[in-house]
Amino acid sequence: MIIRCAILAPRAGLHDITADINAAIAGQHITSGLCTVFLQHTSASLTIQENADPAVRTDLQHWLNRLVPENDPLYTHTQEGPDDMPSHIKNVLTATSLAIPILDHRLALGTWQALYLWEHRHPPTRRQLVLHLQRD
Amino acid sequence: MIIRCAILAPRAGLHDITADINAAIAGQHITSGLCTVFLQHTSASLTIQENADPAVRTDLQHWLNRLVPENDPLYTHTQEGPDDMPSHIKNVLTATSLAIPILDHRLALGTWQALYLWEHRHPPTRRQLVLHLQRD
Amino acid sequence: MIIRCAILAPRAGLHDITADINAAIAGQHITSGLCTVFLQHTSASLTIQENADPAVRTDLQHWLNRLVPENDPLYTHTQEGPDDMPSHIKNVLTATSLAIPILDHRLALGTWQALYLWEHRHPPTRRQLVLHLQRD
Repeated sequence: MIIRCAILAPRAGLHDITADINAAIAGQHITSGLCTVFLQHTSASLTIQENADPAVRTDLQHWLNRLVPENDPLYTHTQEGPDDMPSHIKNVLTATSLAIPILDHRLALGTWQALYLWEHRHPPTRRQLVLHLQRD
Repeated sequence: MIIRCAILAPRAGLHDITADINAAIAGQHITSGLCTVFLQHTSASLTIQENADPAVRTDLQHWLNRLVPENDPLYTHTQEGPDDMPSHIKNVLTATSLAIPILDHRLALGTWQALYLWEHRHPPTRRQLVLHLQRD
Repeated sequence: MIIRCAILAPRAGLHDITADINAAIAGQHITSGLCTVFLQHTSASLTIQENADPAVRTDLQHWLNRLVPENDPLYTHTQEGPDDMPSHIKNVLTATSLAIPILDHRLALGTWQALYLWEHRHPPTRRQLVLHLQRD
């Protein structure tokens, strides 16, 4: 089944959405199956990363900002602001869709994993997710 | 069910295959479900990107060509031509498989999203896709 | 259905796990369907790459090591060793989850494709995979 889910990303960076997705799974009483999380945007991403030390997320953000800086003279797509073309590049280097098994009524993540919406634009942005939930 | 689909990529760059995949979904009369698009090659990719301003695709192509240039002295796998090893690297940085929900008889893409075959080799190349379609 | 699978990665690099996954599929007598391979870790990856010339894997490893070196002064997450933060970055640039169609009792890979566990840490490490197998 399909469930729509909107997330407000308050600023650029990694925002933990694990609880939002687990709530959708629990609401459908699915013990075991597959959850596909699909992001309907091309200037933000999905990623699964370490949920322990917040310095990991800070370093990821800084590293990717250095690899894909704003105001690179290579860019010709500039009319949507200096953070737009870098956001598209960051999107292609990361993920738009993630398929995650469901076990015991929730995402079968590892102990140190969480699911993040990685917002690449600066202003607060509402992002639309489409979840496909499949029951075994 | 499984459907095979061949796409001719006329040159390096992003080629919109949204209509090809939607035609396969419509042909099976699937209202709601999940479509997995799998590319059987390691020197091309799949990506979902902005379908509006073509400058986005041009900039993506130029940026990735700069990050992964031909004739890098690091490469030892050179016998298949100067565009082969860069193509493998570009493939690992992007996607080989994409799972996309199906809604209203087509891919549940956002307003500004299209699905692209990202060809990394120069000559015209026929690429094989395997689609897995699942009906809810 | 869900199957757990543990892989021992003896060192950093690409380790072919195609036979392990195909054995799990064969054990369930699935002719056609979808296999989702999910890695429960954030310092290793999954990738599908060329299975022919081993120089491709060597070049991939060397290229990614150069792009994401150890001891970069940008890193603040350093307490788990010099190979830890680079491993997290390598993970976000590659894949944690791969959905692959099943055909003729095995992964529907192309002729030159194999599925690899890409270990980014140096010491031998046991990695947990969760497979979701769906029968058509």
